[in-house]
Amino acid sequence: MARPSLEFWYEFASTYSYLSAMRIEALAEAAGVEIRWRPFLLGPIFAAQGWTTSPFNLYPAKGRYMWRDMQREAARLGLPCRQPDPFPQNGLLAARVALLGADHPWGPTFTKAVYRAEFGEGRPISDPATIRTVLADLGLDAEAILLRAGEEANKAALKARTEEAMARGIFGAPTFIAPDGEMFWGNDRLERALEWAARPEQGVPDAATA
Amino acid sequence: MARPSLEFWYEFASTYSYLSAMRIEALAEAAGVEIRWRPFLLGPIFAAQGWTTSPFNLYPAKGRYMWRDMQREAARLGLPCRQPDPFPQNGLLAARVALLGADHPWGPTFTKAVYRAEFGEGRPISDPATIRTVLADLGLDAEAILLRAGEEANKAALKARTEEAMARGIFGAPTFIAPDGEMFWGNDRLERALEWAARPEQGVPDAATA
Repeated sequence: MARPSLEFWYEFASTYSYLSAMRIEALAEAAGVEIRWRPFLLGPIFAAQGWTTSPFNLYPAKGRYMWRDMQREAARLGLPCRQPDPFPQNGLLAARVALLGADHPWGPTFTKAVYRAEFGEGRPISDPATIRTVLADLGLDAEAILLRAGEEANKAALKARTEEAMARGIFGAPTFIAPDGEMFWGNDRLERALEWAARPEQGVPDAATA
Repeated sequence: MARPSLEFWYEFASTYSYLSAMRIEALAEAAGVEIRWRPFLLGPIFAAQGWTTSPFNLYPAKGRYMWRDMQREAARLGLPCRQPDPFPQNGLLAARVALLGADHPWGPTFTKAVYRAEFGEGRPISDPATIRTVLADLGLDAEAILLRAGEEANKAALKARTEEAMARGIFGAPTFIAPDGEMFWGNDRLERALEWAARPEQGVPDAATA
């Protein structure tokens, strides 16, 4: 049997994706599950349902709560939490770079560094200068990577990835998908998603359902 | 010092409120926290932000996911799960009755029985006949309770309760509020809300935040 795996779909503007990105590797290691990093864009999915910005801005009471909840959850996990201004940041360039690195060891490292800059330090990841600095600080060849990230093939690949997300019913981030297609949404479901991926044969008793 | 308490705000159309209602008493007992049952209506709050029905209907991908997640979570908790038709059910009458009983032992009992009928058995709680049957099955005087539930004073009290919810920033259900005003949203936060209510002096380290 192949080693269990789990797809981790994330968007750089998503606050709760930050929490998942920072803790998924240790949990996956403990569960014996391999993570497939899947950067994508929520913007086109939100736009398709008529949203022009983050739901946390569209619904202010929910937004105020979310930032308080983030503060509590980050503290619980020992992570810094700072709101970037403006929120949400445009994560397009970061996602292109992350997609380029998704199957290399530097991809997840870059992803975590971007999230830490954005939600740990409140830095503007929409700004290419921030992305360049993040890459350079990791000892990577920033210019070469940014050049390749901006090539048509990579841009098209991110577009296709985002279309795949919509086609598979993804409506928010983070989202976790097991090899059998089982989907879990939200940082609060990370543990259950890993458990499912590690033991897909368990399933869910559904005798009680309609 | 007064015994720790926690407000439990719930709406009868809310699926995740069902899960919280069924497990809150045992968890609160273990935590040494007294629960204040707070039935209210989400409809006016949703309407104020332009929603005409449940967000799970407005956003079908999210709705499909929610029912699958409910099936998994209910199974994990050993609870039956069945979708009432139509969804959402109108919980106005049930909320009026629950409000009447909120400070009596029969109120929580009635609340749990309504949720079980609605999301455990898929019965139409919008139908006054269902509410009457639920009351009678609990050995309560259904006619007398329904009469009092429909009196102007009780109707006004539910309206005021709902306005209070909106004024306090409640945007969904279930919502838990500690005596110091700390708010927690969602069945996934029930444990943390109880922990907070039991030890409010703990607070959240926020040195890392903006």
